Amino acid sequence: MPVTRIAIRAGKPATYRKALMHEVYEAMRDVFGVPEDDFFMALSEHEEDTLLFGRSYLGIERSDDFVLIQITASNTRSEEVKKALYRRIAERLSASPGIRGEDVFVNLVEVTKANWSFGRGEAQLI
Amino acid sequence: MPVTRIAIRAGKPATYRKALMHEVYEAMRDVFGVPEDDFFMALSEHEEDTLLFGRSYLGIERSDDFVLIQITASNTRSEEVKKALYRRIAERLSASPGIRGEDVFVNLVEVTKANWSFGRGEAQLI
Amino acid sequence: MPVTRIAIRAGKPATYRKALMHEVYEAMRDVFGVPEDDFFMALSEHEEDTLLFGRSYLGIERSDDFVLIQITASNTRSEEVKKALYRRIAERLSASPGIRGEDVFVNLVEVTKANWSFGRGEAQLI
Repeated sequence: MPVTRIAIRAGKPATYRKALMHEVYEAMRDVFGVPEDDFFMALSEHEEDTLLFGRSYLGIERSDDFVLIQITASNTRSEEVKKALYRRIAERLSASPGIRGEDVFVNLVEVTKANWSFGRGEAQLI
Repeated sequence: MPVTRIAIRAGKPATYRKALMHEVYEAMRDVFGVPEDDFFMALSEHEEDTLLFGRSYLGIERSDDFVLIQITASNTRSEEVKKALYRRIAERLSASPGIRGEDVFVNLVEVTKANWSFGRGEAQLI
Repeated sequence: MPVTRIAIRAGKPATYRKALMHEVYEAMRDVFGVPEDDFFMALSEHEEDTLLFGRSYLGIERSDDFVLIQITASNTRSEEVKKALYRRIAERLSASPGIRGEDVFVNLVEVTKANWSFGRGEAQLI
């Protein structure tokens, strides 16, 4: 059920954007127990002056390839599972489309199972 | 007080977007106890490769008219009220601008009453 | 660690957008205990029909300069600190780039410390 919003700098080819979104989904499949075909993702591309980030906050050197990922999901995962997700997203994005781990920022927002309607005006999870 | 963010595929006329946003607001008026004039909504339009969704997740057949609606609201509604909201949004969007229930995805994010400032630097709800 | 998403009407110069984002960051530095260089912000510009808001909800007269600010942060701040943040954002934006307090809308979304990865696939706050 996650809703994923991703923000990147403009200028990447479609294959890059496609791989980025796909690998984040696959990472959720790997460690978040997300079923096949359960992805709802929007990506926005930004000019230099509308996506800002600390270039070295916490000693991590970020580049123009910075990726801001916000995932809204149900509040059912342990801290260990969340840590595994961060690791897995970084690993997958490093392999394809080739994003350095330093450039991968992830923020989770958690909600209850009553907070989802996947269609037809129904609350499918309660 | 809800903040509503909507993502759709690009290519719809302004009348369609206007009806979509208006009907989501009216659904919140109907069942969420939202006062008149209490709407704060942003819509983003996406090319095919920047708005992705499972075409048949949970057996619901989604089309290019898919609408991703994220509503941030105070945490004061029961499960029954949330279910009524999903139903009402689907009913209203089906009537105008004519969106199939299968294409209407809704996700609620809940916050406390201290988490709002409607202007003037004040926290109007506490 | 906050993630800040800002929506405004299109048509402002880059200096305006830059000042807007910078001052919101400085307000978080002032009262939210945000460290130097800790900013992750995306701004979206909207045509008239994709950013809607109640023009006089709660008796506050909003103009086309309306700014919708959503901040996702850890759930560690008291109500007093949140109120101080709203005040500070309004004060700073009034000074630069010159936005009336009536046009400044702020919504906070709170998450736990486990919900952040600032890079390298790590959960730096736990």
